[in-house]
Amino acid sequence: MNPRIKWLRDKLKVQNIEGMIITNKHNIKYLTGLEAEGTLLITKKENIFITDSRYIEEVNNSLMIDDEITVSDVRGYTRVDYENFFMFCENVGFEEYSLTYAEYRRIQELYKCNNLVETEKIIEKLRSVKEDDEIENIKQACKITDDCFKYLLTYIKKGMTEKEIAHEIKEFFNRNGANDIAFEPIVASGPNSSKPHAVPTDRKIESNDVILIDMGCKYNGYASDMTRTIFVDSISETLKKEYEFVLDVQNQVLKLLKEGRNIREIVLVLENNYNMSRHVIMHALGHGVGLECHELPFLSSTNMNNLKENMVLAIEPGIYVASKYGIRIEDTVIINKLSCNILTESSKEIIII
Amino acid sequence: MNPRIKWLRDKLKVQNIEGMIITNKHNIKYLTGLEAEGTLLITKKENIFITDSRYIEEVNNSLMIDDEITVSDVRGYTRVDYENFFMFCENVGFEEYSLTYAEYRRIQELYKCNNLVETEKIIEKLRSVKEDDEIENIKQACKITDDCFKYLLTYIKKGMTEKEIAHEIKEFFNRNGANDIAFEPIVASGPNSSKPHAVPTDRKIESNDVILIDMGCKYNGYASDMTRTIFVDSISETLKKEYEFVLDVQNQVLKLLKEGRNIREIVLVLENNYNMSRHVIMHALGHGVGLECHELPFLSSTNMNNLKENMVLAIEPGIYVASKYGIRIEDTVIINKLSCNILTESSKEIIII
Repeated sequence: MNPRIKWLRDKLKVQNIEGMIITNKHNIKYLTGLEAEGTLLITKKENIFITDSRYIEEVNNSLMIDDEITVSDVRGYTRVDYENFFMFCENVGFEEYSLTYAEYRRIQELYKCNNLVETEKIIEKLRSVKEDDEIENIKQACKITDDCFKYLLTYIKKGMTEKEIAHEIKEFFNRNGANDIAFEPIVASGPNSSKPHAVPTDRKIESNDVILIDMGCKYNGYASDMTRTIFVDSISETLKKEYEFVLDVQNQVLKLLKEGRNIREIVLVLENNYNMSRHVIMHALGHGVGLECHELPFLSSTNMNNLKENMVLAIEPGIYVASKYGIRIEDTVIINKLSCNILTESSKEIIII
Repeated sequence: MNPRIKWLRDKLKVQNIEGMIITNKHNIKYLTGLEAEGTLLITKKENIFITDSRYIEEVNNSLMIDDEITVSDVRGYTRVDYENFFMFCENVGFEEYSLTYAEYRRIQELYKCNNLVETEKIIEKLRSVKEDDEIENIKQACKITDDCFKYLLTYIKKGMTEKEIAHEIKEFFNRNGANDIAFEPIVASGPNSSKPHAVPTDRKIESNDVILIDMGCKYNGYASDMTRTIFVDSISETLKKEYEFVLDVQNQVLKLLKEGRNIREIVLVLENNYNMSRHVIMHALGHGVGLECHELPFLSSTNMNNLKENMVLAIEPGIYVASKYGIRIEDTVIINKLSCNILTESSKEIIII
């Protein structure tokens, strides 16, 4: 059987859950490799992927017999069939973080399970520790992102708009083997950089601007995530100090990262630095990176878990002064036994173009 | 007060709902014009948009005093504040189609409402009938889409890949004033056209190919949706007959569309045609188009509602023969009192390039 589904079955067994209804598309891709719309049922006897006529052809072409996944057309089932899937199961798991309340009510009505139980991101937790092929894909996505940054340093000129630069980032990814963007690139210049989630505008790059660039691509479905903040023509003393502050905080955090380190402990290092220097914390320190650009673990002070080997994280401290400027530095890193490896290798020296 | 929120308040009153928690981003944009992440609370006394520090600046810049919307930072509230929002309300509405089950449990826990009630797409139903400015935006999106199709007829050449063509569609939209794509364009050639939701591949356009192109852009946030199927160098007698069948079904449907027409009745016309000619129905006849590319009303035989004036619909009959070919013809149309207007004006004659 497909080893990831095998793992899931073992894990469910320990929790006394006898079946599961999987609807999250990233989890379905992770478990089966499939990108079609549908529902994956883990029943006592079988793994069944229920899809519709639009996808049957593709799905049958991509599954292997060793996967032990039965594919079927949603139109082939009666109401009685649905009731039979989990008839002898006491507890059936569902994904409370991806089903809407209306969908939850629908599966409750359809499968008539004895007891639908929340599975608390069981698959997402497995996904947070990456396997070798996943790491290779993320490394490749990071490499394309680094190449893009190098290219941007020669491409960006005064008079260009944020939108033009964001568009060129997407074009670069497309030309250089990425399958997709990981998210819409952020290019925020001058005062626009003070909005952590700025959307590129028609503002033109001017002399003395800060330019904050947050970008990532996908390679074989896996994301990269990197931010660099650069300066046009000059950098003021204030901005230089602010930049060095953010870089110093990031470096302190990066030095702490290794297997077994407590997440809350790492975040408190950032919080202490910000509080001591009267900077305001506007967003979390970081997040996991994989099939989704934002996935487990989330790096906040309420997360009491420890890091594990082969987790991939984005570490992104930033400071934002409303209507004035913003500075963020972000890298994608992988956790090792005794340290971390930084996968995005673009320079973090102060860059003036 | 903002007239759409005023309408919503009146509508809720009739249903004996005394407050509402709005989380769907399209509904928030529709009601307030805002595109920031956050929650809109309709309480007895106030309209409150709770967002976070990343968005406060933008939101305050875009709201008008007449909107009567209070903006606040999520970090400004205690647990007691949340319990006070709906303290004297018997029934508080929520959006069961956009909240996840986990989020539902969270708001249940947070607001401690007496009774959380499903609002059955109350805002989505209002959105299905478009106002003048919305229609203008959709018309503009359709015009850009028509221009794109005209351009593609000169652009597409044998040897190009589906991916290249899909990319050029996005480039065209970008160059010609669209703010975004409505969805990833489908360009499916030869046997790939038999998959209704094909993703563009590296397959090169060949002589005698069918090419199915499904595309749409967004203008001021509003979508267009159009499909054309064209032929390379020649068309076989079989394909000619199939094309004429699809076009004939679409024409029959378009002639029926007007205010007051029953949706089920329209869909049955399609079903009769398909059954009589032994064609297989692979997807619904169509859907509403607006802020979302797929929105209410959905045109299926289980929909017993009648059409209303100023609904905007995509009408998209198609036929698919596995591994051989697919043909789909789709237009965006607006419902009038006595007929419909077709907003996508590209030719539906058989086109051989």
